[in-house]
Amino acid sequence: MDNVRVLIWGFGAMGSGMADMLLDKTGVEISGVCDMHPERVGRSIFEVLERPRKDHPEVIITEDIDALLKPGIADIALLATDSFTKKAYPKILKLVKEGINVISTAEEMSYPRAQEPDLADEIHAAAKEYGVSVLGTGINPGLIMDLLVVLMTGACRSVDHITAERVNSLSPFGPAVMEEQGVGLTPEAFGLGLEDGSLAGHVGFPESVRMIADGIGWTLGGPVEQTQEPIISTVPRKTKYIEIAAGDVAGCDQRGTGYVYGEPRIRMIHPQQIEPELEGTETGDYVTISGVPDVNLSIRPEIPGGIGTIAMCVNMIPQVINAAPGLKTMLDLPVPRAILGDMRDRIER
Amino acid sequence: MDNVRVLIWGFGAMGSGMADMLLDKTGVEISGVCDMHPERVGRSIFEVLERPRKDHPEVIITEDIDALLKPGIADIALLATDSFTKKAYPKILKLVKEGINVISTAEEMSYPRAQEPDLADEIHAAAKEYGVSVLGTGINPGLIMDLLVVLMTGACRSVDHITAERVNSLSPFGPAVMEEQGVGLTPEAFGLGLEDGSLAGHVGFPESVRMIADGIGWTLGGPVEQTQEPIISTVPRKTKYIEIAAGDVAGCDQRGTGYVYGEPRIRMIHPQQIEPELEGTETGDYVTISGVPDVNLSIRPEIPGGIGTIAMCVNMIPQVINAAPGLKTMLDLPVPRAILGDMRDRIER
Repeated sequence: MDNVRVLIWGFGAMGSGMADMLLDKTGVEISGVCDMHPERVGRSIFEVLERPRKDHPEVIITEDIDALLKPGIADIALLATDSFTKKAYPKILKLVKEGINVISTAEEMSYPRAQEPDLADEIHAAAKEYGVSVLGTGINPGLIMDLLVVLMTGACRSVDHITAERVNSLSPFGPAVMEEQGVGLTPEAFGLGLEDGSLAGHVGFPESVRMIADGIGWTLGGPVEQTQEPIISTVPRKTKYIEIAAGDVAGCDQRGTGYVYGEPRIRMIHPQQIEPELEGTETGDYVTISGVPDVNLSIRPEIPGGIGTIAMCVNMIPQVINAAPGLKTMLDLPVPRAILGDMRDRIER
Repeated sequence: MDNVRVLIWGFGAMGSGMADMLLDKTGVEISGVCDMHPERVGRSIFEVLERPRKDHPEVIITEDIDALLKPGIADIALLATDSFTKKAYPKILKLVKEGINVISTAEEMSYPRAQEPDLADEIHAAAKEYGVSVLGTGINPGLIMDLLVVLMTGACRSVDHITAERVNSLSPFGPAVMEEQGVGLTPEAFGLGLEDGSLAGHVGFPESVRMIADGIGWTLGGPVEQTQEPIISTVPRKTKYIEIAAGDVAGCDQRGTGYVYGEPRIRMIHPQQIEPELEGTETGDYVTISGVPDVNLSIRPEIPGGIGTIAMCVNMIPQVINAAPGLKTMLDLPVPRAILGDMRDRIER
């Protein structure tokens, strides 16, 4: 059996991390990489990744996706370019129409029916027409605040309320994330950023809440309510990428609520900040279910975001290739799992 | 669409608990119950469950499975009679040959390929021939020490070692479990019981270890090594069902090890005892993965065994009905989840 052939579209931190992970696996090869960044176009992925090529086939990064998409180029594409379904959608359709399965890192694609039902329908129809599957996943949305919650309700006879909490550190992240989360702003500038929409914060609450609700059979009474509050530091904090003074914003405490039968039944709590331990905050992921039985799950420290998303996308490759054609979510597929053997052993042909 | 029709075979603590749970759900009905116990045969399930019938159809418990198995009697059977594949197997085949999907509580059936590969093949072939699916599940094996572990590896780029630990209380359990676990014996009698095989302990380590190994792509170097040590109480302990003196056995500390490439890579730690808190033992479920990243997950207190198994079996009904024909494991199916809406909404027709 031939190696599983993987195309990577987007070679930033996520896409290049997936490449690095794939190169350590057997039964799989990277068959093409598309990226627009002038510093990467035309270079070997091995040079960019700073690792020896060994017996892997050479892959030169191209910015021309159309030239790359020759018949048979790939069994599956890892699309790591966007956060929003609207932005990812034309790229997904292009891949689907070439008969290529797709895994997208776009947070909204983890449950596109939540905010883009029409695009979800279109992707589903196209995927069925071309006989491929499309999945959005990552560490969150994709696992921590949704799939893991749903899984734990499987041990419950009944469920009254759910809280998913992710308390994590932003220290490893670079300028783009600092800007999205408002780190380093004054509280006033943070407030203005919220008003003018420039603080994206975490993308994914509507998707996670809807995935949980649909998964267990609750009907949401309306859109997910969201709030973002600045986490104002009382001490100076410093990372590799940013330095803030006491009184500045160290991060963003984002919360979301899903209402079911008029009651707040699904709560999302997601404070993210640089150097949380400086003020005694312990990072972790928490799932609390009030039901029969109650469930109190914690993961300490939290599963790190970057490597977690990279692993989830790579590890779901077999499930997506094996799935019946169409748009899938993590609710539809067998559980993610590490791939420590030959990836070809996972593929049903 | 008609209600999902469920037959329950075995109306002990598990089977009757599943009935009680099903009666609170919509879109599903209990279409037959088989049980051998003289105190239950011939009685209404509502009388046995001590709950009003309301508008549910009457169900009289019968000991005659053949009389019960008329065409169309059920979409799925919940088989709660055995722990071992060999004992469950003829019952499973009988159901399969009537075109009925099966969920078995038999611990070995959670991964029958581990210890009964020939029977697993036979069940798989029969299920395919008759167009139905068969699954073994429960809280453990089925979720805590296997599926949850596999799921968490999904966030890992690589995995070196895995430890699954379940520290639970036996206080809610009755005489049968006390006997299997050796509670109330002297340490000497416990030793003799181990020698003559009368202390079954926990059934499921070979299944859980193999499910994890197969799931992530590790090849086990041989059978799972198991040990059972008495937990000797230094204080008197007492439950509804048993009273022990200081110096008696309060429970059993069972451990298992799966070797991969000559190294102990999968460890199972499962101490079970009555009233653990009397000597400061905190109950809980723990998954520890040493890998990239490390994972430290805990559930405190542990998911209770009885209600957990009941919930897992009932909650997996839609996934088993929807599955392609054959013998399935929890690795093959979409994640378990609570069923809070109409069960018919989950069935793909």
